[in-house]
Amino acid sequence: MGKLLIVGTVAFDAIETPFGKTDKILGGAATYIGLAASQFEVESAIVSVVGDDFQKEYLDLLESKNIDISSLEVVKGGKTFFWKGKYHNDLNSRDTLTTELNTLANFNPLVPDNFKNADVVMLGNLHPGVQMSVINQMDKRPKLIILDTMNFWMDNTLEQLINVIKHIDVLTINDEEARQLTNEYSLVKAAEAIQKMGPKYVVIKKGEHGALLFNEDNVFFAPALPLEEVFDPTGAGDTFAGGFAGYLAATENTSFSNLKNAVIHGSNLASFCVERFGTKRMKDLERDDVNKRLHQFKALTQFDIELQ
Amino acid sequence: MGKLLIVGTVAFDAIETPFGKTDKILGGAATYIGLAASQFEVESAIVSVVGDDFQKEYLDLLESKNIDISSLEVVKGGKTFFWKGKYHNDLNSRDTLTTELNTLANFNPLVPDNFKNADVVMLGNLHPGVQMSVINQMDKRPKLIILDTMNFWMDNTLEQLINVIKHIDVLTINDEEARQLTNEYSLVKAAEAIQKMGPKYVVIKKGEHGALLFNEDNVFFAPALPLEEVFDPTGAGDTFAGGFAGYLAATENTSFSNLKNAVIHGSNLASFCVERFGTKRMKDLERDDVNKRLHQFKALTQFDIELQ
Repeated sequence: MGKLLIVGTVAFDAIETPFGKTDKILGGAATYIGLAASQFEVESAIVSVVGDDFQKEYLDLLESKNIDISSLEVVKGGKTFFWKGKYHNDLNSRDTLTTELNTLANFNPLVPDNFKNADVVMLGNLHPGVQMSVINQMDKRPKLIILDTMNFWMDNTLEQLINVIKHIDVLTINDEEARQLTNEYSLVKAAEAIQKMGPKYVVIKKGEHGALLFNEDNVFFAPALPLEEVFDPTGAGDTFAGGFAGYLAATENTSFSNLKNAVIHGSNLASFCVERFGTKRMKDLERDDVNKRLHQFKALTQFDIELQ
Repeated sequence: MGKLLIVGTVAFDAIETPFGKTDKILGGAATYIGLAASQFEVESAIVSVVGDDFQKEYLDLLESKNIDISSLEVVKGGKTFFWKGKYHNDLNSRDTLTTELNTLANFNPLVPDNFKNADVVMLGNLHPGVQMSVINQMDKRPKLIILDTMNFWMDNTLEQLINVIKHIDVLTINDEEARQLTNEYSLVKAAEAIQKMGPKYVVIKKGEHGALLFNEDNVFFAPALPLEEVFDPTGAGDTFAGGFAGYLAATENTSFSNLKNAVIHGSNLASFCVERFGTKRMKDLERDDVNKRLHQFKALTQFDIELQ
């Protein structure tokens, strides 16, 4: 059982999809990462910040999943980061209607002492300067530093992003962002270019079209499970990252073959996340359901051709 | 070694991609299907029509691949079907610049006597009435009838299309067309709806995002091999279909597990097709290259998670 340090947003989301809408509900990258990682035998902590408008029941939920929240700062008189978005009919694109940074604007992450020796550090999508400050606080080099980012930081803080990317092992990024970061249309070439920037491993997330894992000449692909209905894609990418990081922290094995398994576990968990609004499905997800669906993943992808 | 009957266009294509352009070169669904199927131990025939402007070297090429072309009609004074198209920068969409039906306008397929007992019939994208007439000419019910179609026939001859679909075993169709045919956005639901129309198996082609095979509660997915460069997507879908049909004719086994293998073989061959203009790569493709790339497909998709 390894230690997993999670840094990222804990937030309120208001979501509209073709199937309905919600008021402010629990969201944020670190929340989804933590919930997904809690499916594995890990000791995990979330470093983040919220306002004192953040409900106790949400803190209780995270604690009930054995997530250490002693470094989840609650700012007196502050308000929690809020995002409001509306998905288009095909669920593949969305408009951001509101972004209120609130307490996140001055977020200064403090890694708890007992997690300065974490085995795996999962840096959720945040300002690259904040991500770098977390790496600098570690007592020893973690076995694996995983970083997620998005186009916003490429547009606004590219230099800092390139700097933090030098210090990590795995970059998780979506296909369009990989193209933007490298000016390469081919994802194979984009992944090569990213590896030259520092990370040994690159995970390119393609949403409903699955995820690719690259390392030198190795490529592995995990599809998204074909579902009857996708209800709300919010958090799917973070759930993927949480499953990926949680499995690697639990197994303490960073071989390519184990990273392949981690991609499958991440895809498997993400397939649950999208079935309900927000964190609803992940909150109550049972180990049995997770194991059953792994069988479906195997049936979906495994074949038996005798090679010559 | 089974018998494979291929019906579809044999054509001239003029292609423009971001990487270059060609004058009239060899193209057509039946051409790509035949070339791909010739990678397997099959006895195959193409039923099609061309004009007497069609070069002898192209006929020789097909014969050199052991394809029976005695029912490839050459119309005296007629012109060969011609398509001209231009791909956009991302290669995922294209504009048709010219379509000259020529001899195809009056195509009346005649199944050769020695193929009226074919094991597998591969009906390439054509008028559904022409596809139906081929089925009606068979002496005995083939083990497997595979049909490819496109949105044009849904827009213009929907009733005839629905009729021929009742008589087939496998429909191959792309994702957008599956949605159009069924009014279902979810591909899982679209595949269910298509199975209710007749075919036991549905293959949904997603281009660079791979292909899904559905049969009752079973789903299988094959990714497209991630390539450094895609040069020209023309013929990839037909090459997939040709590999799929060729493998099934060669193995004479229509179990779901063998159809999974057929999807992998089809995807494998399609990955070569897109590396060069038109049929260039498929013409000289060696069995060794094909086998090598199957190893890549296995590495790309196979994992080893102990299930509970």
